Amino acid sequence: MSLSNAWSLPLVPSDASWLPIALADIDAVMRDHLHCERKAATSALSLLRSYPERADVVEWTVRLAHEETRHVVQVAQLLNRRSQTPGHDHGDDYAAALQKHVRKTEPGRLLDRLLVFAIIEGRSAERLAMLAGALTEPRERLLYENLADAEFRHRDGFLQLAAATDELWKSRAVELCAHEAAILARLPVVARIH
Amino acid sequence: MSLSNAWSLPLVPSDASWLPIALADIDAVMRDHLHCERKAATSALSLLRSYPERADVVEWTVRLAHEETRHVVQVAQLLNRRSQTPGHDHGDDYAAALQKHVRKTEPGRLLDRLLVFAIIEGRSAERLAMLAGALTEPRERLLYENLADAEFRHRDGFLQLAAATDELWKSRAVELCAHEAAILARLPVVARIH
Repeated sequence: MSLSNAWSLPLVPSDASWLPIALADIDAVMRDHLHCERKAATSALSLLRSYPERADVVEWTVRLAHEETRHVVQVAQLLNRRSQTPGHDHGDDYAAALQKHVRKTEPGRLLDRLLVFAIIEGRSAERLAMLAGALTEPRERLLYENLADAEFRHRDGFLQLAAATDELWKSRAVELCAHEAAILARLPVVARIH
Repeated sequence: MSLSNAWSLPLVPSDASWLPIALADIDAVMRDHLHCERKAATSALSLLRSYPERADVVEWTVRLAHEETRHVVQVAQLLNRRSQTPGHDHGDDYAAALQKHVRKTEPGRLLDRLLVFAIIEGRSAERLAMLAGALTEPRERLLYENLADAEFRHRDGFLQLAAATDELWKSRAVELCAHEAAILARLPVVARIH
């Protein structure tokens, strides 16, 4: 699934302090990353539960869930190679704050869910790519490059579904990106993916 | 992962009426099956969330989640070939009734969760194998044979984790299987996997 035009989400760049903070406790970031991939898989499956009548949503989400669970396996193996025990999920204030902007009822709810997923994928992709650029161990660098590429693809897949859901998708995407920028500005910068 | 001994769950056979009821509305059963595989994937991911410090649980559940999401893809493709739109999840009174027997606190909660998953996998395996034996389209029959085999493997994987969790696992498994038999006897037989 690919977008026919080059429009992308107007996400602000991450604060410059994020990468050094992340690298200073890269093990914590990787432990958090495992849960991010887990939650991405769970979220994809939740869309299948909510919208079984939308053939394009079903086709996309079942493949996405399978891909995200491969990432879960890959990050679990990475932690194992680094002799790291996965930790408990510390929750994700960023994602929770974004979810508050999702409308509670249709029409609107599906569009917002798709766009919030696109934003989270886009932000994750930016940060995984930043990590990839800073990691020195070749296998880890390659893994993070591949995972960043996957998240960019997922962002675009969600945008394509959004475009098929509501003709006002771009203006709503711009609104939600503005909310996302405000959330980032408000939350502390920590050694986690978000 | 395989069990070193041949002990298996003492599950009662399904009521003889289940197969004819299922075959009389096989499309409904397959639509329900999609959600069963989805929930199996979500459940595996929930174990990763709850027990990240148990290396054996993590290793097993991340691979299980990846395999269950492949089954989700396969059943979605099956529905597509049959021109069936996936339906909404009708819930699963059987699984909900079983979950009520899971103790709320540790120690005990993990053992019970593992054993309930083993029971659900074992029951699902029995029924998928029954369907495989009755389906006449070769590709569908093969798919259900393979899915049944997978569920039997999953049952045994959960039992192995249970054995590594609590030395009283067999007696608790027997208790929970008795509860499962009572649940089956109480619930109506319907055109669903459970």
